[in-house]
Amino acid sequence: MRVLGIDPGIAIVGFGFIDKQGHKLVPVQYGCIQTEAHTSDSLRLRQVYEATVQLIDKYKPDAIAIEKLFFSRNVTTAMIVSQARGVLMLAAEQKGLPISEYTPMQVKQAIVGYGKAEKKQVQEMVKLFLHLSAVPKPDDVADALAVAICHAHSSGLQQQLNGAYKR
Amino acid sequence: MRVLGIDPGIAIVGFGFIDKQGHKLVPVQYGCIQTEAHTSDSLRLRQVYEATVQLIDKYKPDAIAIEKLFFSRNVTTAMIVSQARGVLMLAAEQKGLPISEYTPMQVKQAIVGYGKAEKKQVQEMVKLFLHLSAVPKPDDVADALAVAICHAHSSGLQQQLNGAYKR
Repeated sequence: MRVLGIDPGIAIVGFGFIDKQGHKLVPVQYGCIQTEAHTSDSLRLRQVYEATVQLIDKYKPDAIAIEKLFFSRNVTTAMIVSQARGVLMLAAEQKGLPISEYTPMQVKQAIVGYGKAEKKQVQEMVKLFLHLSAVPKPDDVADALAVAICHAHSSGLQQQLNGAYKR
Repeated sequence: MRVLGIDPGIAIVGFGFIDKQGHKLVPVQYGCIQTEAHTSDSLRLRQVYEATVQLIDKYKPDAIAIEKLFFSRNVTTAMIVSQARGVLMLAAEQKGLPISEYTPMQVKQAIVGYGKAEKKQVQEMVKLFLHLSAVPKPDDVADALAVAICHAHSSGLQQQLNGAYKR
C-alpha cells in the first residue's frame, strides 16, 4: 500500500509518499510544494492544486493522509491554511483516493507513543522508521512523512481488527 | 459587465449573477448550491467545485466577488467554510476570472451605507436594487446578490477614479 501524507499550507505544502511492505515502511518520494508570497491567494491555491494532481498522477498512491488543523490561536492563519486544505482534498477526491485525517496529537501518539511529544522527537522517529540518514527539511516535509507513517500504522491496525472480526 | 457574487459555505453556497448596464443592475440568475450533511467533506467540496464550474461555464461572468469570512467565534466553522472558499477560488482562478473579496461590513456599507446595518435592511435593499418582487431565499442567496451589487458599485467607482486620473 502506498500512502501520500500531506502537511497542508499555502506557502509550503509538505508531502511524503511511503510504501508499506509487510511491516516495513519504505520512503518513495518526499518534498514540498512552495508558492510565492507576492502572488494572489487564488493563484497560490491553483499552484498547490495542480502540483498535487501531478504528484498523484506520477506516484499513484492508494490513500491520502492529511493533517487536521487544530488551531485556536490565529483564526486568520487557520482560514488561509483551510483554503489550501480544501483544494488538496478536492484533488484527492477527484482522483478517487480515500482521505484520512489525523490531528497533530494523533500523529504524535502514533509515531512517538505520546500525544504531547516534542516536534524534535517526532522528526527523529520519522528518520528512524524510514531509515533516513537525516531528518528531512523543512519541518513540513517531516510532518508530511509523519502523518503518512501514522496512517500506515493505523490502517495496519485496522486491517488486523478487520481480520479478527472476519474470523 | 456581469458579476458573480458568492456567499461561501459547505452546506449551502449562495450565488447571484447580475449585469451592470450603465447605472442599472439587472439580475440574471441566482440560487444556491446545496450539499448533503451525511456525505464526506471531500465529496461536498467536489460538488461545490463542480457546480461552480458549471455555473461559470453557463453564465460566463466577467468577475467574481466573494464574501470574506470574518469569524472570531467558531474556529471549526471558519475552517470548514474556508475549505469551501478554497475550491470556489480555485474554480474562479482556473477560469481566469478576477476575484474580489469583501467583508460583510464592506458589503453592508456599499448596500445600505452603514457597515453595521441589519441583515434585513441589506435584504430589502437587494430587493430594491434588483427590482425583485420578494427577498430571495434562503439568506445565502440574498447575501450572494449583495456581494455582487457591492462589487458592481465599487468597480463603478474604480472606473470613475481611473477615468479621473486619466484626464
